[in-house]
Amino acid sequence: MAVYTEVRDDELAAFVSTYDIGEVTSFKGIAEGVENSNYLLKTDQDDFILTLYEKRVNREDLPFFIGLMEHLAAKGIACPTPVKDRNGQTLRELAGRPCALISFLEGMWVRRPLPHHCSELGKALAEMHLAALDYNGTRANTLSLYDWRPLFEQSKPQADTVQDGLAAEIDEELTRLEADWPSGLPQGVIHADMFPNNVFFMGDKLSGIIDYYFACNDAFTYDIAICLNAWCFEHDGAFNTTKARAMLASYGAVRPLLKSEFDALPLMARGASVRFLLTRLYDWLNTPQGALVKPLNPLEYLQKLRFHKHVETAREYGLDQ
Amino acid sequence: MAVYTEVRDDELAAFVSTYDIGEVTSFKGIAEGVENSNYLLKTDQDDFILTLYEKRVNREDLPFFIGLMEHLAAKGIACPTPVKDRNGQTLRELAGRPCALISFLEGMWVRRPLPHHCSELGKALAEMHLAALDYNGTRANTLSLYDWRPLFEQSKPQADTVQDGLAAEIDEELTRLEADWPSGLPQGVIHADMFPNNVFFMGDKLSGIIDYYFACNDAFTYDIAICLNAWCFEHDGAFNTTKARAMLASYGAVRPLLKSEFDALPLMARGASVRFLLTRLYDWLNTPQGALVKPLNPLEYLQKLRFHKHVETAREYGLDQ
Repeated sequence: MAVYTEVRDDELAAFVSTYDIGEVTSFKGIAEGVENSNYLLKTDQDDFILTLYEKRVNREDLPFFIGLMEHLAAKGIACPTPVKDRNGQTLRELAGRPCALISFLEGMWVRRPLPHHCSELGKALAEMHLAALDYNGTRANTLSLYDWRPLFEQSKPQADTVQDGLAAEIDEELTRLEADWPSGLPQGVIHADMFPNNVFFMGDKLSGIIDYYFACNDAFTYDIAICLNAWCFEHDGAFNTTKARAMLASYGAVRPLLKSEFDALPLMARGASVRFLLTRLYDWLNTPQGALVKPLNPLEYLQKLRFHKHVETAREYGLDQ
Repeated sequence: MAVYTEVRDDELAAFVSTYDIGEVTSFKGIAEGVENSNYLLKTDQDDFILTLYEKRVNREDLPFFIGLMEHLAAKGIACPTPVKDRNGQTLRELAGRPCALISFLEGMWVRRPLPHHCSELGKALAEMHLAALDYNGTRANTLSLYDWRPLFEQSKPQADTVQDGLAAEIDEELTRLEADWPSGLPQGVIHADMFPNNVFFMGDKLSGIIDYYFACNDAFTYDIAICLNAWCFEHDGAFNTTKARAMLASYGAVRPLLKSEFDALPLMARGASVRFLLTRLYDWLNTPQGALVKPLNPLEYLQKLRFHKHVETAREYGLDQ
């Protein structure tokens, strides 16, 4: 929620003059996105978002992310479209940072999703999975099962300061996941960070999905599990079966789940809980007080993990296979 | 540079429905303004800024600020215009905060002002001073000469940790200002915070002045002095006479300075330096590390103060009376 890199007048003018987008009429930093600097750039022709990629984004990954947005947009998926400069380039540099000018996507993210939002999400997620099947970029998931234990080791000594017994509980869970993590499930490009703030709606209709900067190749079911966690729990921690059913049903109407995927869902949901529990735990322990970005509470994801541990079959998510 | 208050979907929808501004198409926090939360609100009719007034703004002052913007806008001064709801109200409440919906002002602030920007500024400043003459609101300057010593006392014990001898230097300067502060100069409503980030340009033309939340009744010369400091020094601390001459000449072409104002300018500039030196010093000493808003360096204003202490007459600012 910040702007990390300032852009000088002359730099901006020189940059914009290499695009066919008209004259700049406004340029404002926007308080969205945790990793990068985002500006709203208005011209006399249109509105745009200018994203400057900050240090936490790996420069080598940018062609994958930008190419993915171009691929999805070309296939009619509602997502920000990278704008080409006069030389046909989309990945550029400005103020010493890699950057991309992207189309402005109308819509608002929903602070309190309702079942019909979850239904829209399921459909859009499946459509995205299918549309990316013939995308020729690949990127390994850098927060996969194999990355969790090294990440955990960095927080382990302080974990119990957050909650008594947390280290042991995570340790035990990792052992279980490492032993039983499903393999051989349908894979492709997943979004991997489909939280409500990355999904825009106009009224009741989903108008687009943003922020592809965690996208990677992994099991589709894992992406579904991330969404179950991010969209189908209430603020008090209760799981909302109506929302889960709406999401899974609309996903399945576009891309029917295999039995193996359905069966894997509870364990996938545990893994997805552990992934966000671990990154939040690390940030919680390593963010200085009063920092620009407030760390999110890791215990929210401990609560979700505990819920999924008591799920016997995916039927409990509200839907028969 | 932040958004402090989140607005819920249902709150926003209910709020917007009380205005005749069309359907919302986008709502994004913008990283501008230190004191308040600002959102870009787009509808299918127009763009707006929604400002939520945070704790540091005194609620009783809001009618003065909002009334001033309405008054200036009605007189053709380029500034944000508060938008009336269906009941004719401009000062409203949202998410537990006082708020106002204001028109979106095109233009960009200039990171590195050039002489022609200073010329535009001088003209607009004088026009604003004249246009506010018949505004019937009044507000005392809460950061006037009389407020500086109490403010200084809060930082005095730690002042020398910022620079050796700083406490004594400020003490001596305050004594001088208290003894010789000019009185009887032409007064009216001044902006009192006319930094480059509050002045928008479209190309070479000034397109508007924003952020009236320090506006108050005080000497016009004091406002000019604040601008001299904010616009006419280079980043290396050098005073740029060309810029000062451009600003003062264009101001004087709209509202000619009295001899008393011209003579008072060097001391006014010292006072304006002390005012920002003191607030920055306080923030510098009292802002926790890594806070949302980075404190500005107080010593920049010590340097400006020292420059003005060596100015014998306002002629040294580049302009004969």
